Amino acid sequence: MNRIDSVSNEKIKYAVKIAASSSKRKEDKIFFLEGLRLCRDVALTGIKIKTAFFTDKAYEKNQSDADFIKDKAENSFLISQSVADKMSLTENSQGFYCLCEYSWVLSEKDIDAKGKYIALENVRDPANLGAICRTAEALGIKGAILSGCCDRFSPKSQRAAMGSLLRLAVVETENLPETLRRLGEKGMKLYATTPDENAAQITKSDMNGGVVCVIGNEANGVTDETFSVCKKLTIPMKGRAESLNASMAAAITMWEMMR
Amino acid sequence: MNRIDSVSNEKIKYAVKIAASSSKRKEDKIFFLEGLRLCRDVALTGIKIKTAFFTDKAYEKNQSDADFIKDKAENSFLISQSVADKMSLTENSQGFYCLCEYSWVLSEKDIDAKGKYIALENVRDPANLGAICRTAEALGIKGAILSGCCDRFSPKSQRAAMGSLLRLAVVETENLPETLRRLGEKGMKLYATTPDENAAQITKSDMNGGVVCVIGNEANGVTDETFSVCKKLTIPMKGRAESLNASMAAAITMWEMMR
Repeated sequence: MNRIDSVSNEKIKYAVKIAASSSKRKEDKIFFLEGLRLCRDVALTGIKIKTAFFTDKAYEKNQSDADFIKDKAENSFLISQSVADKMSLTENSQGFYCLCEYSWVLSEKDIDAKGKYIALENVRDPANLGAICRTAEALGIKGAILSGCCDRFSPKSQRAAMGSLLRLAVVETENLPETLRRLGEKGMKLYATTPDENAAQITKSDMNGGVVCVIGNEANGVTDETFSVCKKLTIPMKGRAESLNASMAAAITMWEMMR
Repeated sequence: MNRIDSVSNEKIKYAVKIAASSSKRKEDKIFFLEGLRLCRDVALTGIKIKTAFFTDKAYEKNQSDADFIKDKAENSFLISQSVADKMSLTENSQGFYCLCEYSWVLSEKDIDAKGKYIALENVRDPANLGAICRTAEALGIKGAILSGCCDRFSPKSQRAAMGSLLRLAVVETENLPETLRRLGEKGMKLYATTPDENAAQITKSDMNGGVVCVIGNEANGVTDETFSVCKKLTIPMKGRAESLNASMAAAITMWEMMR
């Protein structure tokens, strides 16, 4: 493997930029992952690894994992610790870094009208987005429909998802109400969650067949435009907490969809 | 109201110390809250506010809330922005700060043997602890039993709980298996969650009457000692995600307890 020992190497500067900039990620269709687990997870998918970086120590300590990742990568480099420190966003990167291509983007036509989907509208916190997708995968949800959310390819989203965002079917739409309307025409049941206690209780709602449930923004909930094409659903609450947070509401909603 | 304009004022130095140090909080039985919402929430409970601080701007902008908090506080001070900056741990403190007494600590005998409780064993992330307690309150769980967890009086825990930790009945124990054994003798059903798919499915478990469900540490789960006095429960999973995170597992578990 070739080595990179300089923090001003162009490849390192590029990786740092991809990690930091959502617009650069979108422009180049490249995203950055760090950590043994995420780098191994991405190597297990069909996603193309453009460049892999390993510190000497990481390569020595986890050679079989590193070789597995290296075999899937177009280019691989050994890097010094100072170069790793330049790229690291966390304290536990373990000396593994990858630049990957996001060429497997799905569209509305890939949605299975008989499947169960979670739709996230304007979810802005990458920790929520990641945690919801992790739970979606664990519970066997078919996919996620994202609209106006934070960047799912950001290092924070990817980290919170613990690899789920590399495997879960994700569809992005710029017009959620329109997408939902078309899915409704295909026979899917459309629900949107609300703390409003006059809405239908989630336990009394029909979750058979194809279903989409919408979770809204952390502070403002689902938009009126989206409510207008969905049936409102609520998780009955008893205490004084004003509402469940977005990821908890999503967990309970997905659980009821799959139960 | 008296004013404090110096960042080296003893009361300010004390507040900063309480916010930063778990051992100081334990020693003095005092904790620190910041933000309009948490300060208002604590004023709505029976918890004693020792000292309240408001920036001039905060007092002017939210005078009725500030007066309400001031009326419940032993001492109140107006502070300059530089003093506020010294105390702030977040960007959204809104100029409201309180030092409060934690004298309402409950013990095992306060547990209602006919109620539903969540027990948290070695949950170390304050964001998880807070989020789980917020969900517990929202779903109407009677209380939380904590053992070996991070400090529930830390600013991070309090913030994540959005006020729930000020209202939820919380019992701490240093010997969870012993506490559980005694609760079992009083007729409570004892469950502990595990990703082990050979455990009983949560949907097929009897949640009638008094119940305690244990959620374990984020990385290591429930301890063997605690498993030895509980029935193992699992949330059936379908995807490749290795497990649900602790707060998501807790949300689904509490939902099933209350469903």
